[in-house]
Amino acid sequence: MWKHPKKNDFPVGQVRHYLEPGPIVLISSKWQRKANVMTLGWHTILEFSPSLVGCMISSGNHSHHMIRSSGECVINLPTTVLTNTVVGIGNTSGAEIDKFAQFGLTAEDAHAVDAPLVVECHANFECRLHDDSLIEKYNFFIFKVVKAHVAQRPKQPKTLHYTGDGVFMTSGKIISRKSMFRPGMI
Amino acid sequence: MWKHPKKNDFPVGQVRHYLEPGPIVLISSKWQRKANVMTLGWHTILEFSPSLVGCMISSGNHSHHMIRSSGECVINLPTTVLTNTVVGIGNTSGAEIDKFAQFGLTAEDAHAVDAPLVVECHANFECRLHDDSLIEKYNFFIFKVVKAHVAQRPKQPKTLHYTGDGVFMTSGKIISRKSMFRPGMI
Repeated sequence: MWKHPKKNDFPVGQVRHYLEPGPIVLISSKWQRKANVMTLGWHTILEFSPSLVGCMISSGNHSHHMIRSSGECVINLPTTVLTNTVVGIGNTSGAEIDKFAQFGLTAEDAHAVDAPLVVECHANFECRLHDDSLIEKYNFFIFKVVKAHVAQRPKQPKTLHYTGDGVFMTSGKIISRKSMFRPGMI
Repeated sequence: MWKHPKKNDFPVGQVRHYLEPGPIVLISSKWQRKANVMTLGWHTILEFSPSLVGCMISSGNHSHHMIRSSGECVINLPTTVLTNTVVGIGNTSGAEIDKFAQFGLTAEDAHAVDAPLVVECHANFECRLHDDSLIEKYNFFIFKVVKAHVAQRPKQPKTLHYTGDGVFMTSGKIISRKSMFRPGMI
């Protein structure tokens, strides 16, 4: 197992840096003393302040009910070193197995929520359910990020982006166009 | 200017293949005979069938009001060859300039909506506003994709993924884990 770099506190208003590019994330939750984790690709940033993230979590997922009941979760950012783990988590159910044990993941206590942080991930965003008005109709949860932790290195984590059909795109070259941006549009 | 590959009809239920990886998109709209286009990074797939996509379109954008009034738009997928155009579109307002003219974009008639297709993009997804219940509170538009067009090549378009601060991640290597997926989980 590789070493996990130390994580720093990160401004919750800037989680778009990691989530806006559209990576696969692992959502961890806890309910009635049991922890679970699921794979999710359907999410979007909704606001900087408060720091809001919308996630479509299908009701067919065991996590759906755990998160709805607890009103909390952690959005964890895995990198390509966890590819097989991400796929394994997405193809099993927390109703049947303990995924932390099965996939050798380390659950660490979060600061502001009961749901655990997944230590092996590059970043962990602690979330509280902010608005449940679209859960019934679209399984769409609006979370407020209340605490963020990000690994000190690497600066550009190699993330996974799901395209369906068992195929992932991985993050590639970084390019800046900062000089072309108007102040306030960055 | 490079040549634009011919586009084929594409199943609306499979637009996740292009949108789930989280690319920057160009949203085109038309209202009162004027067309406009904006840059957007805050979107998510919400459902396969009907084919639903959620987009957070800030009310500060000229397009917000055009799309809300017309109830339509086209989600266009630009590739890295359009990087400077994407940045230019994101740093100007359709209230002040004709962006199609300014950036040399070709507007083509769509099939099911009045909003134009951006010919230079790899894919065009024609959308109708499906649910406006979260627009007032979160500027969140839920669209139904009613017609999709995708370029025949390249098979893996080089997409742009915004991280904030004027910096983009571009799509990288493709990896398959199809053999690890359970039937029905693909």
